[in-house]
Amino acid sequence: MKSLLLIGTGLIGCSFAKAARAKGVFDRVVGIDHDRAALGHARDLGIIDAVANAPCGDHDAVCVAVPVGAIAAKVREVASRCTGPVFDVGSVKGSVIDALDPVPPNFVPCHPIAGSEHQGPLAARTDLFEGHALIMTPVAETDRAAVDAVGAYWKAVGARVVERTPASHDECFALVSHLPHLVAFAFIDTAIRARPLDQVGNGFRDFVRIAGADVDVWTDILHANATRIRPRLDELMRALERFGKAMEQGGESLEQCIESAVCAKRAFDEADH
Amino acid sequence: MKSLLLIGTGLIGCSFAKAARAKGVFDRVVGIDHDRAALGHARDLGIIDAVANAPCGDHDAVCVAVPVGAIAAKVREVASRCTGPVFDVGSVKGSVIDALDPVPPNFVPCHPIAGSEHQGPLAARTDLFEGHALIMTPVAETDRAAVDAVGAYWKAVGARVVERTPASHDECFALVSHLPHLVAFAFIDTAIRARPLDQVGNGFRDFVRIAGADVDVWTDILHANATRIRPRLDELMRALERFGKAMEQGGESLEQCIESAVCAKRAFDEADH
Repeated sequence: MKSLLLIGTGLIGCSFAKAARAKGVFDRVVGIDHDRAALGHARDLGIIDAVANAPCGDHDAVCVAVPVGAIAAKVREVASRCTGPVFDVGSVKGSVIDALDPVPPNFVPCHPIAGSEHQGPLAARTDLFEGHALIMTPVAETDRAAVDAVGAYWKAVGARVVERTPASHDECFALVSHLPHLVAFAFIDTAIRARPLDQVGNGFRDFVRIAGADVDVWTDILHANATRIRPRLDELMRALERFGKAMEQGGESLEQCIESAVCAKRAFDEADH
Repeated sequence: MKSLLLIGTGLIGCSFAKAARAKGVFDRVVGIDHDRAALGHARDLGIIDAVANAPCGDHDAVCVAVPVGAIAAKVREVASRCTGPVFDVGSVKGSVIDALDPVPPNFVPCHPIAGSEHQGPLAARTDLFEGHALIMTPVAETDRAAVDAVGAYWKAVGARVVERTPASHDECFALVSHLPHLVAFAFIDTAIRARPLDQVGNGFRDFVRIAGADVDVWTDILHANATRIRPRLDELMRALERFGKAMEQGGESLEQCIESAVCAKRAFDEADH
Protein backbone atom coordinates (compact mmCIF):
# COMPACT_ATOMS: atom_id res chain seq x y z
CA MET A 1 0.00 0.00 0.00
CA LYS A 2 1.85 3.11 -1.28
CA SER A 3 0.51 6.41 -0.09
CA LEU A 4 0.93 9.95 -1.52
CA LEU A 5 0.25 13.15 0.37
CA LEU A 6 -0.86 15.78 -2.13
CA ILE A 7 -0.60 19.35 -0.87
CA GLY A 8 -2.48 21.49 -3.38
CA THR A 9 -5.31 20.01 -5.44
CA GLY A 10 -4.97 22.17 -8.55
CA LEU A 11 -4.52 21.06 -12.15
CA ILE A 12 -0.90 19.90 -11.84
CA GLY A 13 -1.17 18.19 -8.47
CA CYS A 14 -4.41 16.42 -9.40
CA SER A 15 -3.09 15.37 -12.81
CA PHE A 16 0.01 13.91 -11.17
CA ALA A 17 -2.02 12.06 -8.51
CA LYS A 18 -4.48 10.73 -11.09
CA ALA A 19 -1.75 9.60 -13.50
CA ALA A 20 0.48 8.10 -10.79
CA ARG A 21 -2.42 6.11 -9.38
CA ALA A 22 -3.39 4.91 -12.85
CA LYS A 23 0.18 3.67 -13.34
CA GLY A 24 0.15 1.89 -9.97
CA VAL A 25 2.77 4.17 -8.41
CA PHE A 26 0.47 5.02 -5.48
CA ASP A 27 -2.60 3.21 -4.16
CA ARG A 28 -3.86 5.93 -1.87
CA VAL A 29 -3.83 9.74 -2.04
CA VAL A 30 -4.57 12.11 0.83
CA GLY A 31 -5.26 15.70 -0.19
CA ILE A 32 -4.73 19.03 1.56
CA ASP A 33 -5.89 22.39 0.21
CA HIS A 34 -7.15 25.59 1.82
CA ASP A 35 -9.48 25.86 -1.19
CA ARG A 36 -12.31 23.67 0.12
CA ALA A 37 -14.11 23.63 -3.25
CA ALA A 38 -11.07 22.25 -5.08
CA LEU A 39 -10.53 19.70 -2.33
CA GLY A 40 -14.17 18.60 -2.57
CA HIS A 41 -13.98 18.25 -6.36
CA ALA A 42 -10.77 16.22 -6.08
CA ARG A 43 -12.47 13.85 -3.62
CA ASP A 44 -15.69 13.62 -5.65
CA LEU A 45 -13.65 12.78 -8.75
CA GLY A 46 -11.80 10.03 -6.86
CA ILE A 47 -8.46 11.79 -7.36
CA ILE A 48 -7.92 11.82 -3.61
CA ASP A 49 -9.24 9.21 -1.17
CA ALA A 50 -9.26 11.37 1.93
CA VAL A 51 -8.80 14.97 2.97
CA ALA A 52 -6.60 16.22 5.78
CA ASN A 53 -6.33 19.62 7.40
CA ALA A 54 -2.60 19.41 8.00
CA PRO A 55 0.20 17.03 7.04
CA CYS A 56 -0.10 13.99 9.29
CA GLY A 57 0.23 10.23 9.11
CA ASP A 58 2.97 8.41 7.24
CA HIS A 59 3.18 8.71 3.48
CA ASP A 60 5.62 7.26 0.99
CA ALA A 61 5.96 10.61 -0.79
CA VAL A 62 4.71 14.17 -0.62
CA CYS A 63 3.85 16.27 -3.68
CA VAL A 64 3.79 20.00 -2.91
CA ALA A 65 1.68 21.47 -5.74
CA VAL A 66 1.09 25.01 -4.46
CA PRO A 67 2.00 28.40 -5.96
CA VAL A 68 5.74 29.15 -5.97
CA GLY A 69 5.60 31.63 -3.09
CA ALA A 70 4.08 29.04 -0.74
CA ILE A 71 6.31 26.06 -1.62
CA ALA A 72 9.25 26.63 0.76
CA ALA A 73 7.04 26.90 3.86
CA LYS A 74 5.15 23.71 2.98
CA VAL A 75 8.36 21.81 2.23
CA ARG A 76 9.88 22.96 5.54
CA GLU A 77 6.71 21.79 7.31
CA VAL A 78 6.68 18.27 5.84
CA ALA A 79 10.27 17.36 4.95
CA SER A 80 11.54 16.68 8.47
CA ARG A 81 8.62 14.51 9.50
CA CYS A 82 8.51 12.49 6.28
CA THR A 83 10.98 9.72 5.57
CA GLY A 84 10.10 9.49 1.87
CA PRO A 85 10.84 12.06 -0.83
CA VAL A 86 9.13 15.44 -1.00
CA PHE A 87 8.90 17.21 -4.35
CA ASP A 88 7.30 20.35 -5.74
CA VAL A 89 6.04 21.30 -9.22
CA GLY A 90 6.86 25.02 -9.22
CA SER A 91 7.86 26.98 -12.32
CA VAL A 92 10.69 28.82 -10.54
CA LYS A 93 13.40 26.84 -8.73
CA GLY A 94 16.04 29.26 -7.42
CA SER A 95 13.72 31.26 -5.16
CA VAL A 96 12.34 28.09 -3.55
CA ILE A 97 15.81 26.67 -2.90
CA ASP A 98 17.09 30.02 -1.56
CA ALA A 99 14.13 30.24 0.83
CA LEU A 100 14.91 26.71 2.10
CA ASP A 101 18.36 27.28 3.51
CA PRO A 102 19.26 24.54 4.50
CA VAL A 103 17.64 22.45 1.76
CA PRO A 104 16.20 19.21 3.23
CA PRO A 105 18.03 16.23 1.66
CA ASN A 106 14.73 14.49 0.82
CA PHE A 107 13.39 17.52 -1.10
CA VAL A 108 13.62 17.18 -4.89
CA PRO A 109 12.82 20.42 -6.78
CA CYS A 110 10.75 19.57 -9.87
CA HIS A 111 9.10 21.44 -12.75
CA PRO A 112 6.88 19.56 -15.20
CA ILE A 113 6.74 21.37 -18.56
CA ALA A 114 3.05 20.76 -19.05
CA GLY A 115 -0.07 22.65 -18.28
CA SER A 116 -3.31 23.92 -19.66
CA GLU A 117 -5.27 27.13 -19.72
CA HIS A 118 -7.87 25.21 -17.71
CA GLN A 119 -7.46 24.96 -13.97
CA GLY A 120 -8.43 22.84 -11.00
CA PRO A 121 -9.20 19.16 -10.37
CA LEU A 122 -11.91 19.08 -13.06
CA ALA A 123 -9.28 19.78 -15.71
CA ALA A 124 -6.92 17.07 -14.40
CA ARG A 125 -5.74 14.60 -17.03
CA THR A 126 -3.78 11.37 -16.66
CA ASP A 127 -1.93 12.10 -19.92
CA LEU A 128 -0.92 15.68 -19.03
CA PHE A 129 2.77 14.79 -18.64
CA GLU A 130 2.94 12.17 -21.40
CA GLY A 131 5.91 12.99 -23.66
CA HIS A 132 6.62 16.27 -21.84
CA ALA A 133 9.85 17.22 -20.13
CA LEU A 134 10.13 17.10 -16.34
CA ILE A 135 13.01 19.16 -15.05
CA MET A 136 14.61 18.29 -11.73
CA THR A 137 17.07 20.73 -10.16
CA PRO A 138 18.69 18.87 -7.27
CA VAL A 139 21.39 20.72 -5.30
CA ALA A 140 24.52 19.50 -3.48
CA GLU A 141 22.54 18.66 -0.33
CA THR A 142 19.92 16.58 -2.18
CA ASP A 143 19.87 12.86 -1.44
CA ARG A 144 20.47 10.85 -4.62
CA ALA A 145 18.01 8.13 -3.61
CA ALA A 146 15.26 10.77 -3.33
CA VAL A 147 16.12 12.10 -6.82
CA ASP A 148 15.94 8.58 -8.26
CA ALA A 149 12.64 7.80 -6.57
CA VAL A 150 10.98 11.03 -7.73
CA GLY A 151 12.45 10.59 -11.23
CA ALA A 152 10.82 7.16 -11.36
CA TYR A 153 7.39 8.60 -10.46
CA TRP A 154 7.60 11.10 -13.30
CA LYS A 155 8.85 8.52 -15.78
CA ALA A 156 5.91 6.32 -14.79
CA VAL A 157 3.48 9.09 -15.79
CA GLY A 158 5.20 9.48 -19.15
CA ALA A 159 7.55 12.41 -18.63
CA ARG A 160 11.09 12.72 -20.00
CA VAL A 161 13.17 13.45 -16.91
CA VAL A 162 15.98 15.98 -17.34
CA GLU A 163 18.34 17.41 -14.70
CA ARG A 164 19.48 21.03 -14.76
CA THR A 165 20.88 23.52 -12.30
CA PRO A 166 18.29 25.82 -10.69
CA ALA A 167 19.99 28.86 -12.27
CA SER A 168 20.00 27.47 -15.82
CA HIS A 169 16.38 26.39 -15.40
CA ASP A 170 15.26 29.83 -14.19
CA GLU A 171 17.26 31.63 -16.89
CA CYS A 172 15.70 29.49 -19.62
CA PHE A 173 12.11 29.73 -18.38
CA ALA A 174 12.33 33.47 -17.83
CA LEU A 175 12.60 33.64 -21.61
CA VAL A 176 10.45 30.81 -22.93
CA SER A 177 7.60 30.92 -20.46
CA HIS A 178 7.56 33.79 -17.99
CA LEU A 179 8.20 36.59 -20.50
CA PRO A 180 5.59 35.30 -23.01
CA HIS A 181 3.05 35.17 -20.16
CA LEU A 182 3.91 38.72 -19.11
CA VAL A 183 3.52 39.89 -22.71
CA ALA A 184 0.25 38.02 -23.22
CA PHE A 185 -1.11 39.48 -19.95
CA ALA A 186 -0.08 43.02 -20.90
CA PHE A 187 -1.37 42.59 -24.43
CA ILE A 188 -4.82 41.24 -23.65
CA ASP A 189 -5.24 43.73 -20.83
CA THR A 190 -4.52 46.59 -23.24
CA ALA A 191 -6.33 45.09 -26.21
CA ILE A 192 -9.59 44.31 -24.44
CA ARG A 193 -9.59 47.50 -22.45
CA ALA A 194 -9.33 49.40 -25.71
CA ARG A 195 -12.31 47.95 -27.53
CA PRO A 196 -14.57 44.93 -27.90
CA LEU A 197 -12.99 42.37 -30.20
CA ASP A 198 -14.76 40.51 -32.92
CA GLN A 199 -13.71 38.73 -36.08
CA VAL A 200 -10.38 37.73 -34.60
CA GLY A 201 -8.40 34.96 -36.23
CA ASN A 202 -6.75 31.87 -34.79
CA GLY A 203 -3.46 33.74 -34.67
CA PHE A 204 -4.87 36.02 -32.00
CA ARG A 205 -6.40 33.12 -30.09
CA ASP A 206 -3.10 31.24 -30.01
CA PHE A 207 -1.16 34.36 -29.09
CA VAL A 208 -3.28 35.13 -26.02
CA ARG A 209 -4.04 31.55 -24.96
CA ILE A 210 -1.49 31.62 -22.13
CA ALA A 211 -3.16 34.70 -20.62
CA GLY A 212 -5.92 32.36 -19.41
CA ALA A 213 -3.94 31.44 -16.32
CA ASP A 214 -4.27 31.14 -12.58
CA VAL A 215 -3.78 34.55 -10.94
CA ASP A 216 -2.08 33.32 -7.73
CA VAL A 217 0.21 30.92 -9.57
CA TRP A 218 1.40 33.58 -12.00
CA THR A 219 1.68 36.40 -9.47
CA ASP A 220 4.16 34.19 -7.61
CA ILE A 221 6.08 32.99 -10.66
CA LEU A 222 6.65 36.42 -12.15
CA HIS A 223 7.77 37.97 -8.88
CA ALA A 224 9.96 35.01 -7.88
CA ASN A 225 11.89 35.16 -11.16
CA ALA A 226 11.66 38.93 -11.74
CA THR A 227 15.43 39.53 -11.72
CA ARG A 228 15.88 37.07 -14.59
CA ILE A 229 12.78 38.13 -16.53
CA ARG A 230 13.58 41.86 -16.40
CA PRO A 231 16.66 41.74 -18.70
CA ARG A 232 14.72 39.62 -21.19
CA LEU A 233 11.83 42.09 -21.07
CA ASP A 234 14.23 44.98 -21.70
CA GLU A 235 15.72 43.05 -24.62
CA LEU A 236 12.24 42.47 -26.05
CA MET A 237 11.32 46.14 -25.66
CA ARG A 238 14.47 47.13 -27.58
CA ALA A 239 13.57 44.59 -30.29
CA LEU A 240 10.01 45.98 -30.44
CA GLU A 241 11.42 49.48 -30.84
CA ARG A 242 13.70 48.25 -33.63
CA PHE A 243 10.90 46.36 -35.40
CA GLY A 244 8.56 49.33 -34.93
CA LYS A 245 11.05 51.71 -36.57
CA ALA A 246 11.60 49.26 -39.44
CA MET A 247 7.83 48.96 -39.85
CA GLU A 248 7.56 52.72 -40.35
CA GLN A 249 10.45 52.79 -42.81
CA GLY A 250 9.26 49.75 -44.74
CA GLY A 251 11.32 48.37 -47.58
CA GLU A 252 14.55 46.50 -47.01
CA SER A 253 15.04 47.24 -43.33
CA LEU A 254 11.60 45.82 -42.49
CA GLU A 255 12.09 42.88 -44.82
CA GLN A 256 15.38 42.04 -43.11
CA CYS A 257 13.78 42.15 -39.67
CA ILE A 258 10.96 39.82 -40.68
CA GLU A 259 13.26 37.55 -42.67
CA SER A 260 15.47 37.18 -39.61
CA ALA A 261 12.45 36.42 -37.39
CA VAL A 262 10.97 33.91 -39.82
CA CYS A 263 14.39 32.19 -40.07
CA ALA A 264 14.58 32.05 -36.28
CA LYS A 265 11.11 30.51 -36.19
CA ARG A 266 12.14 27.92 -38.78
CA ALA A 267 15.27 27.07 -36.75
CA PHE A 268 13.13 26.68 -33.65
CA ASP A 269 10.63 24.43 -35.45
CA GLU A 270 13.42 22.23 -36.77
CA ALA A 271 15.04 21.89 -33.34
CA ASP A 272 11.64 21.29 -31.77
CA HIS A 273 10.82 18.24 -33.88
CA MET B 1 -18.61 27.41 -67.98
CA LYS B 2 -17.56 29.87 -65.25
CA SER B 3 -13.96 30.96 -65.27
CA LEU B 4 -11.78 32.48 -62.53
CA LEU B 5 -8.51 34.29 -63.11
CA LEU B 6 -6.31 33.76 -60.06
CA ILE B 7 -3.46 36.24 -59.73
CA GLY B 8 -1.17 34.88 -57.03
CA THR B 9 -1.04 31.14 -56.32
CA GLY B 10 -0.18 31.26 -52.62
CA LEU B 11 -2.05 29.65 -49.73
CA ILE B 12 -5.06 31.97 -49.74
CA GLY B 13 -5.55 32.24 -53.49
CA CYS B 14 -5.16 28.50 -54.01
CA SER B 15 -7.45 27.66 -51.08
CA PHE B 16 -10.12 29.96 -52.50
CA ALA B 17 -9.79 28.51 -56.02
CA LYS B 18 -9.84 24.93 -54.73
CA ALA B 19 -12.84 25.54 -52.46
CA ALA B 20 -14.81 27.57 -55.01
CA ARG B 21 -14.31 24.89 -57.64
CA ALA B 22 -15.36 22.18 -55.20
CA LYS B 23 -18.55 24.14 -54.54
CA GLY B 24 -19.24 24.55 -58.25
CA VAL B 25 -18.73 28.32 -58.23
CA PHE B 26 -16.12 28.11 -61.00
CA ASP B 27 -15.38 25.37 -63.51
CA ARG B 28 -12.08 26.64 -64.75
CA VAL B 29 -9.18 28.49 -63.08
CA VAL B 30 -6.33 30.24 -64.89
CA GLY B 31 -3.34 31.11 -62.71
CA ILE B 32 -0.72 33.85 -62.87
CA ASP B 33 2.31 34.10 -60.58
CA HIS B 34 5.84 35.36 -61.02
CA ASP B 35 6.85 32.51 -58.70
CA ARG B 36 7.11 29.73 -61.30
CA ALA B 37 7.50 27.00 -58.67
CA ALA B 38 4.24 27.95 -56.93
CA LEU B 39 2.50 28.17 -60.30
CA GLY B 40 3.79 24.71 -61.25
CA HIS B 41 2.63 23.21 -57.96
CA ALA B 42 -0.80 24.79 -58.35
CA ARG B 43 -1.13 23.25 -61.81
CA ASP B 44 0.23 19.85 -60.75
CA LEU B 45 -2.26 19.79 -57.89
CA GLY B 46 -5.13 20.58 -60.27
CA ILE B 47 -5.89 23.85 -58.46
CA ILE B 48 -5.42 25.75 -61.72
CA ASP B 49 -6.14 24.39 -65.18
CA ALA B 50 -3.84 26.66 -67.10
CA VAL B 51 -1.15 29.24 -66.54
CA ALA B 52 -0.92 32.66 -68.12
CA ASN B 53 1.88 35.20 -68.19
CA ALA B 54 -0.41 38.20 -68.05
CA PRO B 55 -4.13 38.81 -67.58
CA CYS B 56 -5.84 37.93 -70.86
CA GLY B 57 -9.00 36.25 -72.08
CA ASP B 58 -12.42 36.72 -70.59
CA HIS B 59 -13.07 35.57 -67.03
CA ASP B 60 -16.16 35.75 -64.86
CA ALA B 61 -14.15 36.98 -61.91
CA VAL B 62 -10.60 37.86 -60.91
CA CYS B 63 -9.07 37.03 -57.51
CA VAL B 64 -6.00 39.15 -56.76
CA ALA B 65 -4.17 37.16 -54.08
CA VAL B 66 -0.83 38.97 -53.96
CA PRO B 67 0.96 40.78 -51.10
CA VAL B 68 -0.71 44.04 -50.03
CA GLY B 69 1.88 46.30 -51.68
CA ALA B 70 1.24 44.74 -55.11
CA ILE B 71 -2.57 44.64 -55.04
CA ALA B 72 -3.42 48.12 -56.36
CA ALA B 73 -1.25 47.77 -59.49
CA LYS B 74 -2.77 44.37 -60.31
CA VAL B 75 -6.31 45.61 -59.74
CA ARG B 76 -5.67 48.64 -61.93
CA GLU B 77 -4.32 46.32 -64.64
CA VAL B 78 -7.30 43.97 -64.71
CA ALA B 79 -10.36 45.93 -63.53
CA SER B 80 -10.93 47.96 -66.70
CA ARG B 81 -10.64 45.01 -69.07
CA CYS B 82 -12.78 42.66 -66.98
CA THR B 83 -16.56 42.92 -66.94
CA GLY B 84 -16.95 40.66 -63.89
CA PRO B 85 -15.96 41.46 -60.30
CA VAL B 86 -12.35 41.77 -59.18
CA PHE B 87 -11.50 41.14 -55.51
CA ASP B 88 -8.40 40.92 -53.37
CA VAL B 89 -7.63 39.07 -50.15
CA GLY B 90 -5.25 41.56 -48.50
CA SER B 91 -4.97 42.10 -44.76
CA VAL B 92 -4.89 45.91 -45.07
CA LYS B 93 -7.67 47.71 -46.92
CA GLY B 94 -7.12 51.48 -46.63
CA SER B 95 -3.72 51.57 -48.32
CA VAL B 96 -5.02 49.55 -51.29
CA ILE B 97 -8.06 51.78 -51.72
CA ASP B 98 -5.97 54.97 -51.36
CA ALA B 99 -3.55 53.73 -54.02
CA LEU B 100 -6.50 53.08 -56.36
CA ASP B 101 -7.85 56.57 -56.71
CA PRO B 102 -10.31 56.29 -58.49
CA VAL B 103 -11.50 52.92 -57.20
CA PRO B 104 -12.83 50.76 -60.06
CA PRO B 105 -16.56 50.06 -59.48
CA ASN B 106 -16.09 46.32 -60.04
CA PHE B 107 -13.34 46.04 -57.41
CA VAL B 108 -14.49 44.57 -54.09
CA PRO B 109 -11.90 44.83 -51.29
CA CYS B 110 -11.93 41.59 -49.26
CA HIS B 111 -10.07 40.12 -46.29
CA PRO B 112 -10.68 36.50 -45.28
CA ILE B 113 -9.87 35.98 -41.58
CA ALA B 114 -8.23 32.64 -42.13
CA GLY B 115 -4.73 31.45 -42.72
CA SER B 116 -2.10 29.05 -41.62
CA GLU B 117 1.56 29.10 -40.72
CA HIS B 118 2.04 26.92 -43.80
CA GLN B 119 2.35 28.59 -47.16
CA GLY B 120 1.90 27.95 -50.85
CA PRO B 121 -0.35 25.77 -53.03
CA LEU B 122 0.69 22.58 -51.19
CA ALA B 123 -0.90 23.92 -48.00
CA ALA B 124 -4.16 24.92 -49.76
CA ARG B 125 -7.31 23.57 -48.11
CA THR B 126 -10.89 23.61 -49.33
CA ASP B 127 -12.10 24.14 -45.75
CA LEU B 128 -9.77 27.04 -44.93
CA PHE B 129 -12.61 29.60 -44.89
CA GLU B 130 -15.29 27.34 -43.41
CA GLY B 131 -16.88 29.15 -40.46
CA HIS B 132 -14.43 32.06 -40.65
CA ALA B 133 -15.28 35.70 -41.17
CA LEU B 134 -14.78 37.35 -44.56
CA ILE B 135 -14.65 41.10 -44.32
CA MET B 136 -15.64 43.21 -47.32
CA THR B 137 -14.89 46.93 -47.28
CA PRO B 138 -16.71 48.39 -50.28
CA VAL B 139 -16.51 52.17 -50.78
CA ALA B 140 -18.96 54.69 -52.26
CA GLU B 141 -17.80 53.98 -55.83
CA THR B 142 -18.21 50.20 -55.49
CA ASP B 143 -20.89 48.59 -57.64
CA ARG B 144 -23.45 46.81 -55.43
CA ALA B 145 -23.85 43.93 -57.90
CA ALA B 146 -20.12 43.23 -57.67
CA VAL B 147 -20.31 43.20 -53.85
CA ASP B 148 -23.22 40.75 -53.97
CA ALA B 149 -21.50 38.46 -56.47
CA VAL B 150 -18.24 38.35 -54.49
CA GLY B 151 -20.16 37.89 -51.22
CA ALA B 152 -21.87 34.88 -52.79
CA TYR B 153 -18.49 33.30 -53.73
CA TRP B 154 -17.26 33.60 -50.15
CA LYS B 155 -20.51 32.30 -48.69
CA ALA B 156 -20.25 29.31 -51.04
CA VAL B 157 -16.85 28.43 -49.55
CA GLY B 158 -18.28 28.63 -46.03
CA ALA B 159 -17.31 32.12 -44.88
CA ARG B 160 -19.48 34.46 -42.81
CA VAL B 161 -19.54 37.65 -44.86
CA VAL B 162 -19.35 40.92 -42.92
CA GLU B 163 -19.15 44.49 -44.25
CA ARG B 164 -17.04 47.15 -42.56
CA THR B 165 -15.45 50.43 -43.51
CA PRO B 166 -11.79 50.21 -44.57
CA ALA B 167 -10.79 52.43 -41.62
CA SER B 168 -12.58 50.36 -38.98
CA HIS B 169 -11.16 47.18 -40.51
CA ASP B 170 -7.60 48.50 -40.46
CA GLU B 171 -7.95 49.88 -36.94
CA CYS B 172 -9.21 46.54 -35.64
CA PHE B 173 -6.62 44.37 -37.38
CA ALA B 174 -3.74 46.63 -36.35
CA LEU B 175 -4.54 45.44 -32.83
CA VAL B 176 -5.72 41.84 -33.19
CA SER B 177 -3.43 40.67 -35.96
CA HIS B 178 -0.67 43.04 -37.05
CA LEU B 179 0.62 43.94 -33.58
CA PRO B 180 0.67 40.30 -32.37
CA HIS B 181 2.67 39.39 -35.48
CA LEU B 182 5.11 42.23 -34.86
CA VAL B 183 5.52 41.09 -31.24
CA ALA B 184 5.93 37.43 -32.18
CA PHE B 185 8.55 38.40 -34.81
CA ALA B 186 10.49 40.58 -32.37
CA PHE B 187 10.20 37.98 -29.63
CA ILE B 188 11.38 34.94 -31.56
CA ASP B 189 14.13 36.97 -33.20
CA THR B 190 15.43 38.01 -29.77
CA ALA B 191 14.77 34.67 -28.06
CA ILE B 192 16.46 32.47 -30.62
CA ARG B 193 19.33 34.83 -31.17
CA ALA B 194 19.99 34.71 -27.43
CA ARG B 195 20.28 30.97 -26.96
CA PRO B 196 19.23 27.57 -28.27
CA LEU B 197 15.83 26.62 -26.91
CA ASP B 198 14.92 23.26 -25.55
CA GLN B 199 12.27 21.94 -23.21
CA VAL B 200 9.79 24.60 -24.24
CA GLY B 201 6.13 24.11 -23.46
CA ASN B 202 3.05 24.40 -25.64
CA GLY B 203 2.53 27.94 -24.34
CA PHE B 204 5.69 29.03 -26.12
CA ARG B 205 4.77 27.15 -29.29
CA ASP B 206 1.33 28.80 -29.42
CA PHE B 207 2.76 32.22 -28.63
CA VAL B 208 5.26 32.16 -31.51
CA ARG B 209 3.16 30.21 -34.02
CA ILE B 210 2.26 33.33 -36.03
CA ALA B 211 5.95 34.15 -36.50
CA GLY B 212 6.03 31.34 -39.07
CA ALA B 213 4.76 33.64 -41.80
CA ASP B 214 5.49 34.70 -45.35
CA VAL B 215 8.16 37.42 -45.36
CA ASP B 216 6.83 39.37 -48.39
CA VAL B 217 3.24 39.24 -47.22
CA TRP B 218 4.08 40.53 -43.74
CA THR B 219 6.60 43.13 -44.86
CA ASP B 220 3.80 44.67 -46.91
CA ILE B 221 1.10 44.37 -44.24
CA LEU B 222 3.11 45.94 -41.44
CA HIS B 223 4.29 48.85 -43.54
CA ALA B 224 0.89 49.47 -45.16
CA ASN B 225 -0.83 49.73 -41.78
CA ALA B 226 2.11 51.23 -39.82
CA THR B 227 0.30 54.43 -38.84
CA ARG B 228 -2.45 52.44 -37.15
CA ILE B 229 -0.15 49.80 -35.61
CA ARG B 230 2.28 52.34 -34.11
CA PRO B 231 -0.12 53.76 -31.45
CA ARG B 232 -1.11 50.22 -30.45
CA LEU B 233 2.57 49.26 -30.17
CA ASP B 234 3.23 52.31 -27.98
CA GLU B 235 0.25 51.36 -25.82
CA LEU B 236 1.60 47.82 -25.47
CA MET B 237 5.07 49.08 -24.56
CA ARG B 238 3.55 51.25 -21.83
CA ALA B 239 1.59 48.23 -20.56
CA LEU B 240 4.77 46.13 -20.62
CA GLU B 241 6.55 48.80 -18.60
CA ARG B 242 3.67 48.84 -16.11
CA PHE B 243 3.51 45.04 -15.83
CA GLY B 244 7.32 44.90 -15.56
CA LYS B 245 7.34 47.35 -12.65
CA ALA B 246 4.52 45.44 -10.93
CA MET B 247 6.48 42.21 -11.44
CA GLU B 248 9.45 43.67 -9.58
CA GLN B 249 7.26 44.99 -6.76
CA GLY B 250 5.23 41.78 -6.49
CA GLY B 251 2.34 41.58 -4.03
CA GLU B 252 -0.90 43.38 -4.61
CA SER B 253 0.11 45.58 -7.53
CA LEU B 254 1.25 42.53 -9.54
CA GLU B 255 -1.79 40.53 -8.50
CA GLN B 256 -4.07 43.33 -9.69
CA CYS B 257 -2.32 43.50 -13.06
CA ILE B 258 -2.63 39.75 -13.64
CA GLU B 259 -6.18 39.63 -12.28
CA SER B 260 -7.16 42.34 -14.73
CA ALA B 261 -5.50 40.51 -17.63
CA VAL B 262 -7.04 37.16 -16.74
CA CYS B 263 -10.47 38.84 -16.50
CA ALA B 264 -9.93 40.41 -19.91
CA LYS B 265 -9.01 37.00 -21.29
CA ARG B 266 -12.16 35.49 -19.78
CA ALA B 267 -14.28 38.28 -21.29
CA PHE B 268 -12.68 37.65 -24.67
CA ASP B 269 -13.29 33.88 -24.44
CA GLU B 270 -16.92 34.44 -23.56
CA ALA B 271 -17.46 36.88 -26.44
CA ASP B 272 -15.57 34.55 -28.77
CA HIS B 273 -17.89 31.59 -28.25
